[in-house]
Amino acid sequence: MKVLWGNQIVDREDVRIDIEDRGYQFGDGIYEALRIYNGEPFMFDEHYARLERSAKKIKLILPFTKLALKANLYQLIAAEQLTEGGAYLQVTRGMTGPRDHSIPKSTETKAVLTANLFEYDRPLAMQKTGLTGCVVPDQRWLHCDIKSLSLLGNVLSLNAAEEQGYQDALLVRDGFFTEASASNLWFVFGDTFYTHPDGNLVLPGITKLHLLDLIRMAGLKVSETPVPVEKLQAADEIFVSNSIWEVVPIVSVDGKPVGTGKLGPKTKLLQEKYIASTKA
Amino acid sequence: MKVLWGNQIVDREDVRIDIEDRGYQFGDGIYEALRIYNGEPFMFDEHYARLERSAKKIKLILPFTKLALKANLYQLIAAEQLTEGGAYLQVTRGMTGPRDHSIPKSTETKAVLTANLFEYDRPLAMQKTGLTGCVVPDQRWLHCDIKSLSLLGNVLSLNAAEEQGYQDALLVRDGFFTEASASNLWFVFGDTFYTHPDGNLVLPGITKLHLLDLIRMAGLKVSETPVPVEKLQAADEIFVSNSIWEVVPIVSVDGKPVGTGKLGPKTKLLQEKYIASTKA
Repeated sequence: MKVLWGNQIVDREDVRIDIEDRGYQFGDGIYEALRIYNGEPFMFDEHYARLERSAKKIKLILPFTKLALKANLYQLIAAEQLTEGGAYLQVTRGMTGPRDHSIPKSTETKAVLTANLFEYDRPLAMQKTGLTGCVVPDQRWLHCDIKSLSLLGNVLSLNAAEEQGYQDALLVRDGFFTEASASNLWFVFGDTFYTHPDGNLVLPGITKLHLLDLIRMAGLKVSETPVPVEKLQAADEIFVSNSIWEVVPIVSVDGKPVGTGKLGPKTKLLQEKYIASTKA
Repeated sequence: MKVLWGNQIVDREDVRIDIEDRGYQFGDGIYEALRIYNGEPFMFDEHYARLERSAKKIKLILPFTKLALKANLYQLIAAEQLTEGGAYLQVTRGMTGPRDHSIPKSTETKAVLTANLFEYDRPLAMQKTGLTGCVVPDQRWLHCDIKSLSLLGNVLSLNAAEEQGYQDALLVRDGFFTEASASNLWFVFGDTFYTHPDGNLVLPGITKLHLLDLIRMAGLKVSETPVPVEKLQAADEIFVSNSIWEVVPIVSVDGKPVGTGKLGPKTKLLQEKYIASTKA
């Protein structure tokens, strides 16, 4: 399997990660995951722009230009002959001397890029059947807008749901839904879509951004306001969105059906619009 | 340089960390750092006990026994001929298949241990001169009791202090001091020591635990209660504690001197007692 390491396409086994790489010791790095449709990375520019914003927030100097990364990603796709799947890439601050929380000066750092591809087909069954969810307290940090590698909070949130027999966690902070364990969270009340506004409590999802555009272009109503937990029972539909899964309904929460307990019409409409946009 | 990798002492360059090791992608792992005095790991049993507690909290199966780890650590100390210094060790959940937040079943996981030693002399100058601090909002997650690798919150806290020209961050959550960016935080008011009680908001420091014992054995007063931010100006002394630095005074906060602005008598007494205990 070929992977991208720095600016080289190498065999996966040839990558050398230092045991004191700050990504390994501090979760000190950022990442992006995106889909590849028909051999093309989807919304690469938007993912790259978010990567730049994340880098700025943690004061990490990206060790490549956008064009160089794009070129290397295409080279990797060609090397792996991937048609349908995804790309995962991360950038850490690398190894910068004896372990120290302090962020080293930019002149002393050499950030480490690693990226790999994976085969992945649109999860049609999951998009139709949906997932069961449950409410879990959002105990993550207060910089959820940074797509960082310090993800143990997300991992434990999902685990809390799975241990109760559910498939995803609907996170609640201070009485309001924020997001799911690895995706943005949406509600439908009547004819209006709701999702949490951007800010420090949620990831500014690229898929969310695209869905907001699709909703507005279709002349549908959307409100970027947090949904209070008391309104859960009144939701007609709930769904989650991320770049890998696209749009997936949450069909029950804490064992109670959402709306009809099946993929709802508004969620289905968005699925169709999203899928159509990936073929444009 | 020799390091410990799994149950082998190997050259550092020979360690192979997979790019999809969950420690590298999710900060999904735990760690310990301890001091070595005169060739002996200090309070190894207490550090191991905390490692076990951290492992349990993130559902990670440690891939070694306590005795095996201890034996390997002594072997590493011998190989490196280290007398005064420290050991850093971490355990990640390893690589468990395509990236997925979900914690894999324990039968599918192979946790990865890495450990390295470092030379380190007691920081006498810092222990005498102290550090300047400033108040920084505690924006970390709500599982600070877990000594996890998802440390970007700590890294950014320290950076917030350093960018303002201070040396450490005194973290405040909901109006109360929790800890410093990489150490437990203590206050002296009159004849009483104060530190935040254990719980989900602070790390249960091994050095803190030991200091609590030393304080009580000396018949001094101590209260494990959170200090409200309004009481900052009334503090006679402030200090931080961790295994590497031991006891270090905070001599000013936000540019204002703490007490006399110098190492205070109670902090000095604890430094002496702590150092004496490392020679026992």
